[in-house]
Amino acid sequence: MPELRKDPISRRWVIIATERAARPTDFAHEEVEPNDAARCPFCEGREGQTPPEIFAFRAAGTAKDAPGWRVRVVPNKFPALRIEGRTDRTHLGIFTRMDGVGAHEVIIETTEHHTHLGLLPTDHVAEVIRAYLQRYRDLKNDPRFEYALLFRNHGRTAGASLSHPHSQLIALPVVPNRAAQEVEAGERFFGRHGRCIYCAMLEQEMESRQRVVWENEHFVAIAPYASRFPFETWLIPKVHEADFGALRPELEVPLAGALREALLRLHHCLHNPPYNFMIHTIPYREETRHAYHWHLEITPRLTQVAGFEWGSGFYINTVVPEDAARFLREVTADTEPIRAR
Amino acid sequence: MPELRKDPISRRWVIIATERAARPTDFAHEEVEPNDAARCPFCEGREGQTPPEIFAFRAAGTAKDAPGWRVRVVPNKFPALRIEGRTDRTHLGIFTRMDGVGAHEVIIETTEHHTHLGLLPTDHVAEVIRAYLQRYRDLKNDPRFEYALLFRNHGRTAGASLSHPHSQLIALPVVPNRAAQEVEAGERFFGRHGRCIYCAMLEQEMESRQRVVWENEHFVAIAPYASRFPFETWLIPKVHEADFGALRPELEVPLAGALREALLRLHHCLHNPPYNFMIHTIPYREETRHAYHWHLEITPRLTQVAGFEWGSGFYINTVVPEDAARFLREVTADTEPIRAR
Repeated sequence: MPELRKDPISRRWVIIATERAARPTDFAHEEVEPNDAARCPFCEGREGQTPPEIFAFRAAGTAKDAPGWRVRVVPNKFPALRIEGRTDRTHLGIFTRMDGVGAHEVIIETTEHHTHLGLLPTDHVAEVIRAYLQRYRDLKNDPRFEYALLFRNHGRTAGASLSHPHSQLIALPVVPNRAAQEVEAGERFFGRHGRCIYCAMLEQEMESRQRVVWENEHFVAIAPYASRFPFETWLIPKVHEADFGALRPELEVPLAGALREALLRLHHCLHNPPYNFMIHTIPYREETRHAYHWHLEITPRLTQVAGFEWGSGFYINTVVPEDAARFLREVTADTEPIRAR
Repeated sequence: MPELRKDPISRRWVIIATERAARPTDFAHEEVEPNDAARCPFCEGREGQTPPEIFAFRAAGTAKDAPGWRVRVVPNKFPALRIEGRTDRTHLGIFTRMDGVGAHEVIIETTEHHTHLGLLPTDHVAEVIRAYLQRYRDLKNDPRFEYALLFRNHGRTAGASLSHPHSQLIALPVVPNRAAQEVEAGERFFGRHGRCIYCAMLEQEMESRQRVVWENEHFVAIAPYASRFPFETWLIPKVHEADFGALRPELEVPLAGALREALLRLHHCLHNPPYNFMIHTIPYREETRHAYHWHLEITPRLTQVAGFEWGSGFYINTVVPEDAARFLREVTADTEPIRAR
């Protein structure tokens, strides 16, 4: 019998199609092929092909926009939003508009063209996270921005047009729907139960362990109870914290370790699948910190989203989350990390 | 300058990327290739390859599950939900589950393998709509169902695994999120302004005409102000009606004409693009009818949805809706309809 499951936070229902239950090898997906390295604007030595560097971790004595960096942040050459402008809203009858003000940055994660984030060593992933934090915190100082979304697209199916390992950050002058809904859900639960909904969920998950993929002292990776997508994985800090930007320095390496582990397990289990990940954090100007809990959602792109999903917000998932967690727990993830040359 | 626009119903924001403004020919998309007709289970003469017929329009004197039909409805051979079962909810701590009870039907729109809905004559499309209505109304009689979603996937990118023209219907024991949110938005607006939000929007669109694609006496096709996707098109009844199931018989042909026209214009303008359409209607058991307004949303699948969209519910649309409406208005859509043999 298929099963209907409800996500307690979004109140979204999903159909878990237990009868067509799939194994990792059932998914034929795009081969994530690297673009031609010879023309890649993110490779070392082609710094002139990107807009000027905003931030970098680089070897002492090397110059901005020159080789010698390990992680490099630049503005998106084709930004979805523009940094200059005002944020007044105009009402046109029933409609509302504003100028497309925002920041759109690219975090180039390594000089190495032929790798990806999960294959880098933990200390390198930690530098990527430090770059995220630097940009996330810096953009908060711009009073026009209400939210910043850090995300990563891997593979064409997941929307990546360049294969060189990179993440993106978009800062917005409005709070996106999804963030607002999660904050509301947190408040509602807190009002009723006096605690954070994510903490409550985590407690239950840690007790049952059915959907736990991996954990270290500070972070746990789970297959969420009402996963929308096969092998969806959430990375959640064990101790309550609403704001990704408030990550304590001593948690940078544990977060890097957990993220690397989660990505590496997906990589091995599903043979380098296309995926997206997104950091869900509290809006910049939200003062209440007790009811939200930042986390990172990884969604492999193994199946097509079709009319049913678009029309209803309902999802059909052909992999039972408990099975996904088990497959990911059992995978051997001891690949040697690839160090940048 | 890019522009941020807010949809008054979903309160979802979109980025209209005016600077990268695209033309119809800028979108390289999948060729929607027909599957092999020689093995298609939806073709005439292969009725035995589907589960037994639920409903059909067929020539007088022809037998159920035999040739002679024009439109034929069968259960999905691989249903996402099962018709037998109960709808009690079980609470597992913070989570909620229920059995995957529901109906999953396929509306085979024609015996003709090599065509699609927009290329059929209006009287044939009207029979497809009558089949939708028959199934939609019949499933309402099952007290376990709270909602039924009628939708169509065209092309692999849009999730269609078989190319033979067909739509689907999924009846659900819960109200999907999206439907609940639209009803809520309608109620909120009605509480404030004493009228239907869709009627108010339509009045404004009919006055400005900037985003009107096509209309007849009873229906209008518009490019919505805050379109999520390039060439997104909504078909809206001009007179207030919450329930698709309450469509008056004299509106069946006008609806067929408008749907055919909208699909045909997309077909010619974008060279047979993959797309989804979904009928948004009031939940079966919702009593208040003044604040909701049924409509049909057509979403071409020309661009990838990536981490930003999944993480935020925000969309980036590279075609200005006013431009999309103009391209679709100007396209020549006088192709001869393809009649089934």
